Amino acid sequence: MQSPIEFYFDFSSPFGYLGAQQIEAIAGKHNREVIWKPIVLGFIFKTTQSKPIIEIPLKGEYTKHDLERSARELGIEYTMPTPFPINSITAARAVLWSNSNATSGVSEQATALIHALFKAYYVQGKDISQAEEVINVAHSVGIDRDTLTNALQDDKVKALLKNAIEEALDKNVFGSPFMIVDSEPFWGSDRLNQLDRWLDVGGW
Amino acid sequence: MQSPIEFYFDFSSPFGYLGAQQIEAIAGKHNREVIWKPIVLGFIFKTTQSKPIIEIPLKGEYTKHDLERSARELGIEYTMPTPFPINSITAARAVLWSNSNATSGVSEQATALIHALFKAYYVQGKDISQAEEVINVAHSVGIDRDTLTNALQDDKVKALLKNAIEEALDKNVFGSPFMIVDSEPFWGSDRLNQLDRWLDVGGW
Repeated sequence: MQSPIEFYFDFSSPFGYLGAQQIEAIAGKHNREVIWKPIVLGFIFKTTQSKPIIEIPLKGEYTKHDLERSARELGIEYTMPTPFPINSITAARAVLWSNSNATSGVSEQATALIHALFKAYYVQGKDISQAEEVINVAHSVGIDRDTLTNALQDDKVKALLKNAIEEALDKNVFGSPFMIVDSEPFWGSDRLNQLDRWLDVGGW
Repeated sequence: MQSPIEFYFDFSSPFGYLGAQQIEAIAGKHNREVIWKPIVLGFIFKTTQSKPIIEIPLKGEYTKHDLERSARELGIEYTMPTPFPINSITAARAVLWSNSNATSGVSEQATALIHALFKAYYVQGKDISQAEEVINVAHSVGIDRDTLTNALQDDKVKALLKNAIEEALDKNVFGSPFMIVDSEPFWGSDRLNQLDRWLDVGGW
């Protein structure tokens, strides 16, 4: 097995969602694992003095159109959610907690939870900024409600997200999705094809 | 001939340069003309509260790397210029003036000037924010120095750029490159492949 692809994403990022639907096929093709890295861009936007693209005049309207056009082209189910953007802290903590329970490597449960949370928000229109929704979604992939409810209040779990965001900033991650493989950074779902070609030929 | 592809760009935008190297092949494939639309993003950034990506912490460094990687992949000569970004008002005015001299449709001289100005800045490292350099480059494509020197001081030529920027804003253009074809907007050199597929199948 080659070194993995780190896939940084924010649940509140539609491009992160589009990327998450594609990254496993690319990774599999190149015999790589996907290391899922949930982050919360709000904290990182303080460093980059950014805000969600959807809130920027002109860019916001274009981006809504672009997302729908790109999702249709890729055959990915997608509905612009409301509310948007959302606070994705609870969803990210749930995933990091789930992943921390894995005995080794990539946690299948955490991966299932990621896909279920994305689907809940971008397909089913559920507001996953709410702990109750996150717990419902987690339950649907076999996670005990009470155990997760307690974990979400645990300072150790809160620290997991704080550390994850610090690690992301240390690696100069500033967007979603953001992929790092063999130390090479790729920002945006529109760089997935380039990442694929990069792994095909070993870089250029 | 089908309706043309409007290609909005700022000479100070490296992604505009990369796009300009590719758009004619895509247009030709689909029997479309390219209508070159030089703009100056500085004025538009006031509306979108944006600034050059290169000046944004983390994003700036990544973007420099991304531009070099993308140029290498595409086989396009590119050197990150200094100074950067630049005031591209004079270069844009020269192109708009040259184009206004065309007897009909797309001006071959204006197209030659666009490519020569891009090459001067991104390949030869000449500072095309300076009127003297713009005039030198224009001379290299057959434009009389004195005629252009006078034109650049002409209020009618200044108005051409003002109108071009207003037209761009009216069409919700906010970046470079920005393409519009059959009323469909595409932002970024990384949407050229999507534009190509869009024209292949007539949209989706």
